[in-house]
Amino acid sequence: MEFSLDEFLERHPPADARTNLDSIFSDPGRTGTLMEMPCNLPDPIIDDLKRHLDRVDFNRYPVDGIADLRARTAAWLDLPDSHTVLFGVGASEIIDLVMQYLGAGARALTLDPDFFMYRLAARKYGIDLDTHPLAADFAIDPIGLGRHIAAFRPDLIVLSNPHNPTSTWFRPEVIESILEQAPGLVLIDEVYAPFAPQPDACAALMGRYPNLIILRSFSKLGAAAIRFGFLAGQGDVLDGIGAWQTTFAVNSISAMIAGLIILHYDEIEKNVTRLTEARDSMIRELSGWRGVTVYPSGTNFIVVRLDGYDTRTIHERLVTEGVKAVLYAGDPALENCLRFSVDTPDSNSLAVEQFGLTLSC
Amino acid sequence: MEFSLDEFLERHPPADARTNLDSIFSDPGRTGTLMEMPCNLPDPIIDDLKRHLDRVDFNRYPVDGIADLRARTAAWLDLPDSHTVLFGVGASEIIDLVMQYLGAGARALTLDPDFFMYRLAARKYGIDLDTHPLAADFAIDPIGLGRHIAAFRPDLIVLSNPHNPTSTWFRPEVIESILEQAPGLVLIDEVYAPFAPQPDACAALMGRYPNLIILRSFSKLGAAAIRFGFLAGQGDVLDGIGAWQTTFAVNSISAMIAGLIILHYDEIEKNVTRLTEARDSMIRELSGWRGVTVYPSGTNFIVVRLDGYDTRTIHERLVTEGVKAVLYAGDPALENCLRFSVDTPDSNSLAVEQFGLTLSC
Repeated sequence: MEFSLDEFLERHPPADARTNLDSIFSDPGRTGTLMEMPCNLPDPIIDDLKRHLDRVDFNRYPVDGIADLRARTAAWLDLPDSHTVLFGVGASEIIDLVMQYLGAGARALTLDPDFFMYRLAARKYGIDLDTHPLAADFAIDPIGLGRHIAAFRPDLIVLSNPHNPTSTWFRPEVIESILEQAPGLVLIDEVYAPFAPQPDACAALMGRYPNLIILRSFSKLGAAAIRFGFLAGQGDVLDGIGAWQTTFAVNSISAMIAGLIILHYDEIEKNVTRLTEARDSMIRELSGWRGVTVYPSGTNFIVVRLDGYDTRTIHERLVTEGVKAVLYAGDPALENCLRFSVDTPDSNSLAVEQFGLTLSC
Repeated sequence: MEFSLDEFLERHPPADARTNLDSIFSDPGRTGTLMEMPCNLPDPIIDDLKRHLDRVDFNRYPVDGIADLRARTAAWLDLPDSHTVLFGVGASEIIDLVMQYLGAGARALTLDPDFFMYRLAARKYGIDLDTHPLAADFAIDPIGLGRHIAAFRPDLIVLSNPHNPTSTWFRPEVIESILEQAPGLVLIDEVYAPFAPQPDACAALMGRYPNLIILRSFSKLGAAAIRFGFLAGQGDVLDGIGAWQTTFAVNSISAMIAGLIILHYDEIEKNVTRLTEARDSMIRELSGWRGVTVYPSGTNFIVVRLDGYDTRTIHERLVTEGVKAVLYAGDPALENCLRFSVDTPDSNSLAVEQFGLTLSC
């Protein structure tokens, strides 16, 4: 045999551009890091799905259903005629595709901190990624960012709003100032938008800014299992991005469930309201301790900064007691910060109770 | 606004490396080109699926189910302990991933003709793709191919077996001679394997050849809608390829249906047997005309060569009469060749009847 496995693997070492994190997220110790909705999809959606299954041609490639869903999604989002949507396998595939479309050597600018996947996707496709620091209160300084944009001239600005990992919601005026100054595309990752004060404020800017592309997903709304996300934007831009996607990337069943989610979105909104109300109660209950800053949240998680405490020990105690808390370690901007998931009522009560007990020790 | 859409699109023109062919395949004129199973998934699978839906945590990312399915698939394929499977969004995503893993400048060798997607995926990732011609009877000459391999030293040899577009089944001895001579990976695309005389003959070679990676899919078996394929191969090699995949690329519902297909594979095999019996009848019925060569088929389609006829006109007449026939135009190796789908009994009878009528004109 001509082939030598050892030699081959030496020439093709495991990619440091890895964006497949399945094995990391599958680690049981990571429970609570995926920011899932605590309840399942509403019954009317599951019931409709069962009824629809008798009409599915499983033997056919996803063709007709996808075109139909595209039209319905564009109508649901009230997109201008010049705009369309590109469906993808969760938000993560779409982040990859945008980077792949821009190609090696392109310049991208994101915030520091921001969703770590932008960094991985940029490395995977040889993008020159620069970061702009958030202020200490997790706000964007539009003037400082504007100067950075003018100097760096990025092909892409990408940021999450509401913001992961800080839970901040940036007002549409801030996004608009970025859109005005950007010489390239502006990708606003709105995966957490349904939990924000004005979920569709940024989408309303699409008609005026052809450089605005908005990323949404159903993963945080009770449908992480179906791996369905979409990008909304100007048609030619989306055509260019979609060219890099594999044929028939979105399957018929996930598309059907996505269609049912849109149809029954009032039911989804009830779950979202329950969650944001629980979040706001939890924020009140976690607040009031000396040295503790609880940040406003536009997401389904809460960020808390502890000054004058041994944050690492507090985190360990909370986890030992079964609290879904994550320590933001390694990032100076997030020093002494903890993240709490907004989860089931029991889980939320436990978090509040144990946080108080641990701080009182 | 700093941004100019026209200038941006000029700098980022539509990629000629497009592998997203959704819009092409969605053209109603392309009916019959996707080689789908004519019947739906068997009832026991649909029934089980409905029952299982009550147990799906739609709100959770696909974690547990995928690991479980990986173990079950490896057991089903009887893989050696050193081997595993990588799931993907149909075979097409996996072809992309293999090319992406090898990276720009790598050398790949395929047959001429072979599945057109290898060419598109190679161009997308900057792979130097060379082709080796099949013999006139669509056979591989192992000695000639061996010389080509020795001279070109490809990092990857990729071919479909059974072969698309010729429907030829290459015997395992031929594949083994390639495995012996290949200095790199050998990707055998077995999407049509269930229709072949010995579907698992090549898979049985895996333990002895760590360079053999085998691609399978459920798309031709009645489940094109779920977009589910997998690659079987040596663990470290698959880990390297999978590193390029997006996180959670395979959704829970498609994985669940794939699991049910494996569980009820005896039902799938009944459909496959019905189809191969219909195919073999059709081959007999299409044969016997002067100047007509009907090639042996290991797939769910039949290739016919017409010598001394106006093939283009015959194809037009067949299509006008509703026959699902494709003209192999533009490739000298396939000159005057037509492809018939093996489809429903009515569709097959129509094809045979109209073929006879058209040749008699």
